[in-house]
Amino acid sequence: MSFADVIAKKRDGHALTKSDIDLFVAGVTTGGIPDYQASALLMAIVLRGMTQQETAWLTSAMAGSGDQVDLSDIPGIKVGKHSTGGVGDKVSIVLAPLVAACGVVVPKMSGRGLGHTGGTLDKLESIPGYRINLTIDEFKQVLRTVGTSIIGQTTTLAPADKKLYALRDVTGTVESIPLLASSIMSKKLAEGSNALLLDVKSGDGAFMKTLDGSRALAEAMVDIGTRNGVRTEAIVTDMNAPLGRAVGNALEVAECLDTLKGHGPLALTDVVRRLALRMVILGGVERESTAAAARVDAALASGQALQTFARMVEAQGGNPRVIDDYTLLPATRGRELFRAARSGFVAAMAAEAIGRASNALGAGRTTVGDAVDHAAGIMLLVKLGDEVKEGEPLLELYHRDGRGLEAALAFCESAITIAASRPKPRPPILAEIA
Amino acid sequence: MSFADVIAKKRDGHALTKSDIDLFVAGVTTGGIPDYQASALLMAIVLRGMTQQETAWLTSAMAGSGDQVDLSDIPGIKVGKHSTGGVGDKVSIVLAPLVAACGVVVPKMSGRGLGHTGGTLDKLESIPGYRINLTIDEFKQVLRTVGTSIIGQTTTLAPADKKLYALRDVTGTVESIPLLASSIMSKKLAEGSNALLLDVKSGDGAFMKTLDGSRALAEAMVDIGTRNGVRTEAIVTDMNAPLGRAVGNALEVAECLDTLKGHGPLALTDVVRRLALRMVILGGVERESTAAAARVDAALASGQALQTFARMVEAQGGNPRVIDDYTLLPATRGRELFRAARSGFVAAMAAEAIGRASNALGAGRTTVGDAVDHAAGIMLLVKLGDEVKEGEPLLELYHRDGRGLEAALAFCESAITIAASRPKPRPPILAEIA
Repeated sequence: MSFADVIAKKRDGHALTKSDIDLFVAGVTTGGIPDYQASALLMAIVLRGMTQQETAWLTSAMAGSGDQVDLSDIPGIKVGKHSTGGVGDKVSIVLAPLVAACGVVVPKMSGRGLGHTGGTLDKLESIPGYRINLTIDEFKQVLRTVGTSIIGQTTTLAPADKKLYALRDVTGTVESIPLLASSIMSKKLAEGSNALLLDVKSGDGAFMKTLDGSRALAEAMVDIGTRNGVRTEAIVTDMNAPLGRAVGNALEVAECLDTLKGHGPLALTDVVRRLALRMVILGGVERESTAAAARVDAALASGQALQTFARMVEAQGGNPRVIDDYTLLPATRGRELFRAARSGFVAAMAAEAIGRASNALGAGRTTVGDAVDHAAGIMLLVKLGDEVKEGEPLLELYHRDGRGLEAALAFCESAITIAASRPKPRPPILAEIA
Repeated sequence: MSFADVIAKKRDGHALTKSDIDLFVAGVTTGGIPDYQASALLMAIVLRGMTQQETAWLTSAMAGSGDQVDLSDIPGIKVGKHSTGGVGDKVSIVLAPLVAACGVVVPKMSGRGLGHTGGTLDKLESIPGYRINLTIDEFKQVLRTVGTSIIGQTTTLAPADKKLYALRDVTGTVESIPLLASSIMSKKLAEGSNALLLDVKSGDGAFMKTLDGSRALAEAMVDIGTRNGVRTEAIVTDMNAPLGRAVGNALEVAECLDTLKGHGPLALTDVVRRLALRMVILGGVERESTAAAARVDAALASGQALQTFARMVEAQGGNPRVIDDYTLLPATRGRELFRAARSGFVAAMAAEAIGRASNALGAGRTTVGDAVDHAAGIMLLVKLGDEVKEGEPLLELYHRDGRGLEAALAFCESAITIAASRPKPRPPILAEIA
């Protein structure tokens, strides 16, 4: 069967076989299948869909297209975590040491920010000395001694996914649940965890704008994990407004430290505790929710979670004193308040626009390879539903000598809605899929 | 708007604008749009379709992507003709001189055979000396003096179509009414006729197997022509069995000469007379069917059609004495009869299998550039519905020293069905679209 026949099969709405999919992924990896055939098949997949079985095969083929991390010589169930990305989404930085403090090994490979979303790596790099580029051996050493390590994804994982993603980006074939799910999961499978918790963001600041879309993506990823022998759960969380109060790298690290100390923002703390509970169960340390929740709360209250974070920072070359001395983090001198144009209730703090405002100040990047200003960002001084008076400060912008301030203020303008009546409160956790 | 946005628009089922389509065709022509983007859009078009307006824009953009033949200095309405191709489809060779003999200028650019279908150019080249590669000036000179000329399509017409067709061939994007219709019509529009008659073949030996598909293709092409200011009509004709008795180049030319003399096979004569009648009306020589039919029959009966053919052959370097002396055509010495395996009624003479049998003997080509044996081919000794006795000859194979004979006989075996009862007769003309 020629590859054109494989394309035609999907075009006509039929399911591909495992060998069709293996042929595709091998051809993409080696270059034996030209891009124009790959993109035609991708478009057929976008419009015809894939069964769960096809999606699982595609994922495992992509996961197997490059190096695969072997964590089997580290004892215990290794529980990975992935977020589909949002604005102010600093969950991993709190969650990984918290769950590790509960006795679960948490290997975490993260990404950088792009567009309006931030990236865990950029945030951690605001800690002086923190190295995200560990070798796999160093990574495993930190996992053994600390229980968690957050590093950058190595470039040799799932090269087929990398090539396909670049092609999808320019051929209108990004928007597809099976392709999105298999892309994310191929890297996660290659990372070698035994279990996985997914945080699928939903709303204005997320890739998935609707709850239905987010739920479908979450379900597809859970199915892929399960079919590939990795116990996988997903939680859909709200991303209509930024999570927590801080948006921007160093600002978010400081907020993470506050949260590890038990006085972080409520919504962030809720999400972290809920995810931690599931990971403690996935990791086999507790069997049921009440006990798991108690263990998570104890790890927070005892300071063990905070100490685990400090040990991870130290093991990766960073200065652990940062947990007590936030002045070790970079800071801007410039501050600007964004005030309420009128009195009323805060009805919207649109995550995407606030992300863009923060990036305009230098906190993010528009193209891969841009440098980021770790100090720049935005603090939310109010939260959704708060009653505010005209002229009251809503946001504080941290800028470097006015850089990008005008554009950032315009984005803030578009982000904030003040309404006459109090909006209905939105729960931070929208769905759980196990 | 980037081209990826154009792809996404079609992916989401929206209509493209004229400027989207012009961007696409210009990018394909210059290479500014990479093949992987073009193939993704093609797949989106296959699965989402195109409106009639989009299809007409695509066609005119492709027609304008290269040279366009200007026939405006030849007086009168120039009426082109195109067949979607079949087995034993020698209609153009009879039709063009017949309609020219009726006073209509018939410029005809034809193609070569490929796969199981034959090509008008290969057939005409079996006439010693006949040149199919005229310059456009020579072509127009023959049109002026004879009234018709059949030549090869110049390579500079519709280069965008050529590139897209090559891409579609390897990306599973051939099967699409708008893409098929625009591909054919882009070349026809570039050929410069004022009116056009399309013969859309339907059935086993045609690209379109079903009447519905053939009718849809015919309607799409008629609409494209009309929207581009070329009066276009289509006739859907049967291609479940070969048209006429001869399959193979020189054999078909001899059958064309018989038909021009008034003693060709009935189905072929019927189809030719019907198409000629429409072309006489399209050419403005007659207004209504009865008069047009009378004019066509007179041109046949008077020998004017045959003489026009002889003049065209002579003007293009061929030996016009061929019309009286068929021994000027190449012939094989080898003959083999294929006989009825049992008694009954001839229920099927599958066109595709007979085309493949003929090609196995050397009459056709499997890849562009193969040489053809003009003498090889097959004569049908019976027609659909005939009652035959076991052992009675059904086909005569014209082979060169046994070349391909074994394979050809196997194809013949699969082509012929003999049934116990007489099959329902099938009309040669299935639909007319104006």
